[in-house]
Amino acid sequence: MFSKDVYTRRRKTLLDKMKGEKGIALFLGNVESPAQYRDNCYKWRQDSNWLYFFGIDEPRFAAIVDLESGMETIYADDFDIDDIIWMGPQPSVSSLAERVGVKNTASYGAFDIAVLKAVIDGRPVHFLPASRYYNASKMAALLGLNVQDMFSAGKAGCKNASESLVKAVIEMRLVKEDIEIEELDKAGALGFEMHTRARKGIKPGRIEQEIVGEMESVALSKGWGVSFPTILTQHGEIFHCHTHEMPAVPGRLMVVDAGVESNTHYASDHTRTYPVGGRFSTRQREIYQIVYECNELAYSLIAPGVPYLDVHVSVCRHMLERLKELGLVRGDVQEMVNLGIAGLFMPHGLGHNMGLDVHDMEDLGEDLVGYDAGQKRSSQLGLASLRMARRLQPGNVITDEPGIYFIPDLINLWQKEGTDKGFVNYERLKTYFDFGGIRLEDDILVTPEGARRIGSERLPISPDEVEEAMKND
Amino acid sequence: MFSKDVYTRRRKTLLDKMKGEKGIALFLGNVESPAQYRDNCYKWRQDSNWLYFFGIDEPRFAAIVDLESGMETIYADDFDIDDIIWMGPQPSVSSLAERVGVKNTASYGAFDIAVLKAVIDGRPVHFLPASRYYNASKMAALLGLNVQDMFSAGKAGCKNASESLVKAVIEMRLVKEDIEIEELDKAGALGFEMHTRARKGIKPGRIEQEIVGEMESVALSKGWGVSFPTILTQHGEIFHCHTHEMPAVPGRLMVVDAGVESNTHYASDHTRTYPVGGRFSTRQREIYQIVYECNELAYSLIAPGVPYLDVHVSVCRHMLERLKELGLVRGDVQEMVNLGIAGLFMPHGLGHNMGLDVHDMEDLGEDLVGYDAGQKRSSQLGLASLRMARRLQPGNVITDEPGIYFIPDLINLWQKEGTDKGFVNYERLKTYFDFGGIRLEDDILVTPEGARRIGSERLPISPDEVEEAMKND
Repeated sequence: MFSKDVYTRRRKTLLDKMKGEKGIALFLGNVESPAQYRDNCYKWRQDSNWLYFFGIDEPRFAAIVDLESGMETIYADDFDIDDIIWMGPQPSVSSLAERVGVKNTASYGAFDIAVLKAVIDGRPVHFLPASRYYNASKMAALLGLNVQDMFSAGKAGCKNASESLVKAVIEMRLVKEDIEIEELDKAGALGFEMHTRARKGIKPGRIEQEIVGEMESVALSKGWGVSFPTILTQHGEIFHCHTHEMPAVPGRLMVVDAGVESNTHYASDHTRTYPVGGRFSTRQREIYQIVYECNELAYSLIAPGVPYLDVHVSVCRHMLERLKELGLVRGDVQEMVNLGIAGLFMPHGLGHNMGLDVHDMEDLGEDLVGYDAGQKRSSQLGLASLRMARRLQPGNVITDEPGIYFIPDLINLWQKEGTDKGFVNYERLKTYFDFGGIRLEDDILVTPEGARRIGSERLPISPDEVEEAMKND
Repeated sequence: MFSKDVYTRRRKTLLDKMKGEKGIALFLGNVESPAQYRDNCYKWRQDSNWLYFFGIDEPRFAAIVDLESGMETIYADDFDIDDIIWMGPQPSVSSLAERVGVKNTASYGAFDIAVLKAVIDGRPVHFLPASRYYNASKMAALLGLNVQDMFSAGKAGCKNASESLVKAVIEMRLVKEDIEIEELDKAGALGFEMHTRARKGIKPGRIEQEIVGEMESVALSKGWGVSFPTILTQHGEIFHCHTHEMPAVPGRLMVVDAGVESNTHYASDHTRTYPVGGRFSTRQREIYQIVYECNELAYSLIAPGVPYLDVHVSVCRHMLERLKELGLVRGDVQEMVNLGIAGLFMPHGLGHNMGLDVHDMEDLGEDLVGYDAGQKRSSQLGLASLRMARRLQPGNVITDEPGIYFIPDLINLWQKEGTDKGFVNYERLKTYFDFGGIRLEDDILVTPEGARRIGSERLPISPDEVEEAMKND
């Protein structure tokens, strides 16, 4: 938890941004999330918006801010003797509220009454999209709305949530404060340590799951845990690969995409790709070099005022130029850029915002978080998945994560449907069907001067650095 | 996943047990559970009842069994090309259904239609209590019921769920099959390994969280993960202590209560208590010895036909006899047993069922799972928390976990309210206020002959064994 001033200041700023709005703003902390039954829950994780404005890292808290009077109330229940036997002596709700600068407290049940009273009085009720089913269900019942409409719908926002509140929160959380950058740097340093442990574990014959367990022990020993389910796979062309049954096969590429969440709940997110056995083949090195260049190119372009959308497109252009040299595509590069041919090789976006969430604020709506007012999301494969397109500002923290993948099903589909308009050399491309994929990801802070990487040391990234590191592991 | 025959046989048995019932029985697999937003989820965990009858370890599956015709249908959606890019080639729903012996499949959405059709046709709709909010909310909406009433209410069952279906499932899952016992033994062996790693990590000055991270790497490297949030604490008197900030302090007792969930989702659950620094003080050894004797006594009493309630009471009697020798209580032991004085020292039950859940089937209702038809749960502190009271049968798998704790708030409360009727020597007891607590837990299979411990080797448990093991760590 930060000091009281931090939370008081943030809520003051929010109130200023909401000036002129009537009614009340609701904030709901999380409740525990059952894994198997209600008393065996997943590891406790507080709601990020709650953490940002109210800091208290305990379940079953809620708050109301009166946008007109400025009055703030925290709603939660004190513990009784049964709780004390099972959970030990606990601080009172009022003492916790005091630590984050809130004077008024009431029971958790009183929150519902206060909301219903506002509804009856005809006062506007501002709230954020839900991130979990429990809060969605609670709010839907209170306000007589449909549960499914309490979430952001895919890339769009949530139709029931307050757009003014959502936009005010996004504006604030997009630009990280110095104390947040410190926490992100700490998370990044833990990420370095976790990825180093992973790299040292990648030895021919070892089961992927063993390596995952070892690396995640760093996240658990020194942080809250992983910031998202670890991807460690010799099928890098599959983005969300969560099975880890394969032994490490010499000659394959191992993609490791993983992050740590610090004890203060800030995320890291890095990806490296390693040759099992320690040496890249010529073909692997050729593709790896292109992805490496794309990562470096993006970093060199990141600066205040530059739309991250443009950086994504520049990366696509460079990727296509270099793939053309390898004979995988042919023809005019600018035309290929316009047609989105890079999407065949990199069907995802160049990066996303990071902070208290690894995809920061994704519950608030991808487009609202990642796109400026004038920007419209493209429907092209690749660009359509770009989560961060905005004009960069100092204090933004984003990922830089180009990749090249050979996805047989997708290649076959493009060929069948002629999506490439003749730019792709399928004959050659199909010799890469067993290649897998490569992704290289760093976390970047936009500074007034340009950019710097988040964390401590940079993980080895050039092909030579990687081989050298693996030689010494 | 087990072989097709296993699931076919189980569903056949269930159908036999439900003979004479009209209507349909619903089974809902889990959907992913969001940690922060809907695309960043906690580690995937399937619903245990679904796993037991339908085995498919993938999200967003449901099934309907027609209790009259015996027809079985699995409802789930096949993947489209977008899913294949992000998640790789996936087996079809019909091929997965075939692997568990189900011929009919339909879309996930068709499940809702089938349920509504049954409702309109006036057919009874049997379902189990929900374990998570999403399914609770889905079923409540479909059947026009209140979300909160879709769960088991505390120890009682769920008022909306089908009692006949719940009871049939409990009868089956209470008695483990040989293939399940094999999996439980494997989980137990992993638990041994995890606890050994923990013990070796307990060195003065080390932060508790570091030890937790190290030990949990065993669960992640070789199993699904931990079977419940790890308890590792020098405040053993607090049962659900999930903060791990303290350095290990020489002279304190460290309680480690932790389990592994295997890749097939069977749980282990062991507790050991270690003296930080490797040697028990005289006072610690005295109390430890009592808990150890209670653990051994319970094990010696476990046999088919014996109500586990009686074993709990026998343990309480022995504990009070020995505490009397130490001068902590005084007077007639049988009277103390009747009054529940042991609850001051052991406010929890002796054990619980184990299987696919670490507290097996707790979502189905604690009393229905743990109490025979004629048994009524006591309201005495301690006994009131006994999760397993039933007459034991071969194939039951239960925990044996006596403990002694010194909980200052509870002791003060008893003294103030005179709960002990003069049996407690508070003057002496209060010299134990900084003692903490001790718990020793093994997992036990009830056999036709008596009992055997689940797992591989037994973790060192006698005071001498523990000190010897720590000397060599």
